[in-house]
Amino acid sequence: MIVGGGFGGLRVARRLRRATVDVTLLDRHNHHLFQPLLYQVATGSLAPGEIAPPLRGVLRRQRNVQVLLADVTGFDLGGRVVRAVGPQGRPLEVPYDWLVVAAAATDTYFGREEWRQHAPGLKSIADALRVRDEILSAFEAAELEPDEESRRRLLTFVVVGAGPTGVELAGQIAELARDTLRRDYRSIDTGTSRVLLVEGGPRALAAFDQRLSARTARSLASLGVDLRTGALVAGIDAQGVELDTPAGRERVDAGTVIWAAGVRASPLAGELAAASGGELDRGGRIPVQADMSLPGHPEVFVIGDMTATGLPGTSPVAMQQGAHTARMIERRIAGRETRPFHFRDKGNMATIGRYRAVVEIGPLRLGGLVAWLLWLLIHITYLIGFANRLLVLLRWSISFFTHGRVERVITGEPPR
Amino acid sequence: MIVGGGFGGLRVARRLRRATVDVTLLDRHNHHLFQPLLYQVATGSLAPGEIAPPLRGVLRRQRNVQVLLADVTGFDLGGRVVRAVGPQGRPLEVPYDWLVVAAAATDTYFGREEWRQHAPGLKSIADALRVRDEILSAFEAAELEPDEESRRRLLTFVVVGAGPTGVELAGQIAELARDTLRRDYRSIDTGTSRVLLVEGGPRALAAFDQRLSARTARSLASLGVDLRTGALVAGIDAQGVELDTPAGRERVDAGTVIWAAGVRASPLAGELAAASGGELDRGGRIPVQADMSLPGHPEVFVIGDMTATGLPGTSPVAMQQGAHTARMIERRIAGRETRPFHFRDKGNMATIGRYRAVVEIGPLRLGGLVAWLLWLLIHITYLIGFANRLLVLLRWSISFFTHGRVERVITGEPPR
Repeated sequence: MIVGGGFGGLRVARRLRRATVDVTLLDRHNHHLFQPLLYQVATGSLAPGEIAPPLRGVLRRQRNVQVLLADVTGFDLGGRVVRAVGPQGRPLEVPYDWLVVAAAATDTYFGREEWRQHAPGLKSIADALRVRDEILSAFEAAELEPDEESRRRLLTFVVVGAGPTGVELAGQIAELARDTLRRDYRSIDTGTSRVLLVEGGPRALAAFDQRLSARTARSLASLGVDLRTGALVAGIDAQGVELDTPAGRERVDAGTVIWAAGVRASPLAGELAAASGGELDRGGRIPVQADMSLPGHPEVFVIGDMTATGLPGTSPVAMQQGAHTARMIERRIAGRETRPFHFRDKGNMATIGRYRAVVEIGPLRLGGLVAWLLWLLIHITYLIGFANRLLVLLRWSISFFTHGRVERVITGEPPR
Repeated sequence: MIVGGGFGGLRVARRLRRATVDVTLLDRHNHHLFQPLLYQVATGSLAPGEIAPPLRGVLRRQRNVQVLLADVTGFDLGGRVVRAVGPQGRPLEVPYDWLVVAAAATDTYFGREEWRQHAPGLKSIADALRVRDEILSAFEAAELEPDEESRRRLLTFVVVGAGPTGVELAGQIAELARDTLRRDYRSIDTGTSRVLLVEGGPRALAAFDQRLSARTARSLASLGVDLRTGALVAGIDAQGVELDTPAGRERVDAGTVIWAAGVRASPLAGELAAASGGELDRGGRIPVQADMSLPGHPEVFVIGDMTATGLPGTSPVAMQQGAHTARMIERRIAGRETRPFHFRDKGNMATIGRYRAVVEIGPLRLGGLVAWLLWLLIHITYLIGFANRLLVLLRWSISFFTHGRVERVITGEPPR
């Protein structure tokens, strides 16, 4: 039984394809999500389906897997049962012999839940479509706004958090404003839009080498993104944000605020801790044994962003832990001992805009066009499904030559 | 001033590109909608952006057009002002010299508005995504349903209305169930799904030649669609529909009911009638002069599905009326008389499933593969935007070879 069809959970299922086990994969969405490209859905470059293949489709040929669309509500580790709710509120109890929990992470507003309504996060397809609606609607409202000050506010976009998602999102909003939309409006010049990237720490992409952070800062500047490091968000309301900066409190009026700052383990980590008597760390993550099993429950494995392992919450970590877990389950079934998980760091990459990316592979530090091409290649390779690869490649080629973005539908209700 | 960026309104704007006029195009959506392919978004074959290009993008190079995202609330024909509401509820008053109203049509439930919540229509991108969510969720719920009778209900799909949209939608749902999804589920056989196409009149595609209706009925039967002509909907609730058939009252339990039956002119027809002292016909349409102008208001033109002209509510009619209206405005500005509008019927087509379509062109009656290829060619040609043509062509090629559908994300909230 696998809870979660993200990078980790899906890898477990696939690696068990030749094992003599029956696999149940349970997810509350009907699709896997290629989260590294979610910001491209939020900025109109890709369609949702291209990065979110249905889990059933991905696993259709693997006859030992059953996929269930349901939301887990709790664990009975003694009775070896997972409790969940299916479509239309139907309660479910699913028994298991082996359990893998790979429920990833969610946004956290650090106890300021009231910020969520003004500053949506970017974790799901629904989030991405909401963010896209907000960005595109801000330009529409600005076009109709006669008051100069209100127009400036509507054309100000604040992204909170300069990790890879924040950097990529800010870069894309800047390109959207200065390039894609520039000739679309008559009353406003979208090129005068202000894109602010707010980071509490001292530099963007803190997980990368310092030189790449510096390079990222230069790339952002050349795109017109105003990177503000050492700035903490003190408040968010319908009109903008309050920042605590080294120079003191600062008010930034903004029409759109997007939250790419706080990540917290899935609440299922708490359910597991409650069921097993464990304790969570400050990020809500659950400690695991060296072999990724839950302390006291060798039949339960926990992987990915919800575990307190000291490793970054990235897809390569989740995937390697997934592959390891599948191997460990096979070993245990064969009566053998488990082994500790070791992460093989294959590198780190982020893109900032057209032709611009930063890449770390071992001692290698790359920036610029070469890094960007490598980024393209790797993202196309890791996309699931031949159709998605073709479609994304065609979309990117079209965008490259036309500077256009095809997916720019505002799906929400009309203004009235 | 043009109200509505559909087939008619957009054609007016484009035909005025070399005229010495300033054009304002007002729409409550930010996109044009290629409605003939909306059912393909509803069944996962296409992404929204591919059939809904942003109006600003379509008209970006036409410097004499300004696009406004706003919802019209009323007309002051004496003062020559259109009243509207923009994003975030901002009231607008837009003055005009010449007004073209091309606000199309909406669903009607014939006075049974309570049916809407159980049987969504298919008029907008938001509608299509809702229908897609409902169809895909029905299969998900069925997979988890232990009770045989409830499972049968969940796997029953009712489409009301056998015009082109109803026929195409029913055909696609049947293909989705019997082909695309067949190997995706483990507990249910989606191939046993029941697709019911309910039509009050004596035949499907009543606007077509009788022989093509017969051919359509055969094609639907071979796809496994149960076409029920002469059946009137007497009731719709959360559990299914009640039909009045020649054999008496019949209850059909269904998990999904989709409304493709009633069309009524936009409420703006009523606003225009109130402002001009005119009267609407039974379909809520407004009578116009032979030159498409509003009686008593030679400076106001009304075109497309909202006019009572006796012509069908199709895109060719709206487009030809749009072109005519642009010419008439130019003539009037040049001090010349207007001329009556004449519709040149270039034919009629509908598709039923893979390789199956029906086409009427003059005396020509086509069915089968040739008709389907012609349908493909014409739909690709009329799609707006080079990128959309390429993407749709690639999507259809992929679907053709893999029988897959890439856009199958359930975007709604998870089950809990």
